[in-house]
Amino acid sequence: MLGLTFLGTAASVPSRDRTMSCIAVKQGKAVTLFDCAEGSQRQLMISRLSFMKVNSIFITHLHGDHVLGLPGLLQTMGMSGRTAPLDVCGPVGMRDALDSMMRACDGTLEYECNVHELSDGDTFRLESATVTAFATEHGVPSLGYLYAEDDGPGRFDRARAVELGIRPGPDFTRLQNGEIVRGVEPSMVIGPPRRGMRIVYTGDTLPGGRIIEMARDADVLIHESTYVPADAKLAKEHMHSTCMDAAETASECNVRFLFLTHISNRYDDASVLEQMARTVFENTIAAMDMDSFEISDKGLIRV
Amino acid sequence: MLGLTFLGTAASVPSRDRTMSCIAVKQGKAVTLFDCAEGSQRQLMISRLSFMKVNSIFITHLHGDHVLGLPGLLQTMGMSGRTAPLDVCGPVGMRDALDSMMRACDGTLEYECNVHELSDGDTFRLESATVTAFATEHGVPSLGYLYAEDDGPGRFDRARAVELGIRPGPDFTRLQNGEIVRGVEPSMVIGPPRRGMRIVYTGDTLPGGRIIEMARDADVLIHESTYVPADAKLAKEHMHSTCMDAAETASECNVRFLFLTHISNRYDDASVLEQMARTVFENTIAAMDMDSFEISDKGLIRV
Repeated sequence: MLGLTFLGTAASVPSRDRTMSCIAVKQGKAVTLFDCAEGSQRQLMISRLSFMKVNSIFITHLHGDHVLGLPGLLQTMGMSGRTAPLDVCGPVGMRDALDSMMRACDGTLEYECNVHELSDGDTFRLESATVTAFATEHGVPSLGYLYAEDDGPGRFDRARAVELGIRPGPDFTRLQNGEIVRGVEPSMVIGPPRRGMRIVYTGDTLPGGRIIEMARDADVLIHESTYVPADAKLAKEHMHSTCMDAAETASECNVRFLFLTHISNRYDDASVLEQMARTVFENTIAAMDMDSFEISDKGLIRV
Repeated sequence: MLGLTFLGTAASVPSRDRTMSCIAVKQGKAVTLFDCAEGSQRQLMISRLSFMKVNSIFITHLHGDHVLGLPGLLQTMGMSGRTAPLDVCGPVGMRDALDSMMRACDGTLEYECNVHELSDGDTFRLESATVTAFATEHGVPSLGYLYAEDDGPGRFDRARAVELGIRPGPDFTRLQNGEIVRGVEPSMVIGPPRRGMRIVYTGDTLPGGRIIEMARDADVLIHESTYVPADAKLAKEHMHSTCMDAAETASECNVRFLFLTHISNRYDDASVLEQMARTVFENTIAAMDMDSFEISDKGLIRV
C-alpha cells in the first residue's frame, strides 16, 4: 500500500489555488518526494505529512518550477534538527544546481545530503522500493521515474496450516520463512506474493517515448497535462503534453489509474481536462493540490 | 497614503499559518517588496496585489528565508509578459546570489533586471518616494530600509482664492504651480505640504544601533520580533530581537504604529507577543500573513 499526495499541481506559474510541482509518495513512514517546487516545504506542513520523514527527493529536471523549493526544505530540515542523511536524485547538472542555490542563501547543512545524478535506466534503491529513472523529452536533461514497491509476502492461511497438522507457534514462523515443516511446503499454506504497487511519474515531457514501456501495466500513471488538445501546437512547441496525450498513454499502457498534473493556469477549470481525458481513459483524475490517496491492489481510496 | 500588506511573517521556517518574510508597500499602483522569501509570488496572487506592478524589491540580507522567492517571482514575471525593467536592491553579495539562483534553474529573463548593492546611508529613488538603506546587526551584511513617501502638495483653498479675486481656471493652476497671480501668493491659498508617510523595516537584527535614528518619528516601524523576552538569550545568540526590544524601540523613536513580524513558530499564539509589547507601546500589532492596511496622516485602517 502506498500513499500518494499531490502537493503542487500547477504548470510553470502558480495560482491562488495551485502551487507548482511536488508529489509525495508515502510507504510505511518514509516519504519520497518527486520534484520540489517553491513552496513545497509549506505544502508538506499543510498536508500534515512529516517533512522530517522525507528521506529521498527525485527531481525530474532543473526548471525553476520543479526545483526551487529544494534549498528552503533542506535548510528547514537542518534547523529542525535533522541528522539522518538525505538523498537528492536528479538529471545531470543536479549537483551544480543545488550547490548554486545553497551558496546563494548562505546555506550549510549539518546532516549528510548526497546528490546522485541519474541517467536513463539507472535505479535507486529505497528501503522497500526501487526507483528507476527513464529519459523523457523536454529540451533539457529530463527524467521520469518509476516507483516500484517491493512485492510483499503472500497471505498465510492459518486454518489450512492447522488442518495440515501444523501447530501455531515456531512452526508457523518456519513456514513463513520458506522452510518445509513436517512435509508441508510453504506454498501449501501461503498465497502468492502480494504484488508491490507501481507508480510512474513523467515530469515535463512530450508524450510517448520511454514512458510507454515504463508505464506498462503500472498501477498509477501521473502524466503531465499542461494543455488541452486545442493548444496542441503550444504543447509541441514547449515540449509538453495535452490531457489527451496523457489519456492515450494510460490506455495504451493498460494502467489502472491516471492522474493529470502540471495543469496550466490558463484553464480556469481543470475538470474540463479530466472530462476530455475520460472519453479515452475512464479512470482519470485531474489532481488538485492536497489531493491524497491510498493505492493498493484493492484499489484507490481518497483519504 | 500608503498600502502595507504582510505577505509573510514567519521567522526562518514556515508553518501551516505563516510563510516567510515578504512585505509589500503600495503607493498609487506601484508595489515595492521588502524581502522575498520562498512562496512570495503565490502570496502576492492570494493577496490580489498585482505581481506585475512590482517594480522594485529590497532584500535585507541573503538568508534563505528572505531571498529564496526571488528567482521564481522573476521568472513568473517574465513568463507573464513583463517588459518593464525591475530593480532588485540588497546588501553586498546580492548580485552573486541572484546570479547563482537564476543559473540553478535555467533562468533567463526577457526584461531588464538591474541589481543594486547598497550600503549604509545609500538612497534609492522610486517614482514618488525615496528608500534609504541603513546598516543592521545580524552577523552577515544586512540592511534595514526607510521608505519615505514624497511630501504631497498642500490643500488648495478654492473659496479663499475666489475671495481674493482669482477666477477658477488657468490662474488656479498657476497658483498651484507656485506662481504669484495678481498679488496673491500661493501660500495664501495653499495649505502646508501633506507630509509623506514613512515606514521603517528592520529586517533581521539585534535591536538598537542605526534603527533608532532612522525610525525617529516614523509613521510605521516594522520591527523583527523573533522571540519573547524569556528567550532573550537565544535572541542575542542568533542576533535577533524580542517583542520587548521592538516595543522599546518604537517608544524611544516616537513612531505612530509598531508591527511585529518575523515571529518564531515556537510560539503558538503571536498575540502573546503583541500583548507583551503593548505594555510598553500601545499601538502594536503582531502581523499575520495577509494582514493589509492603509496608512495616512489620518491614521491606520485595516483593509
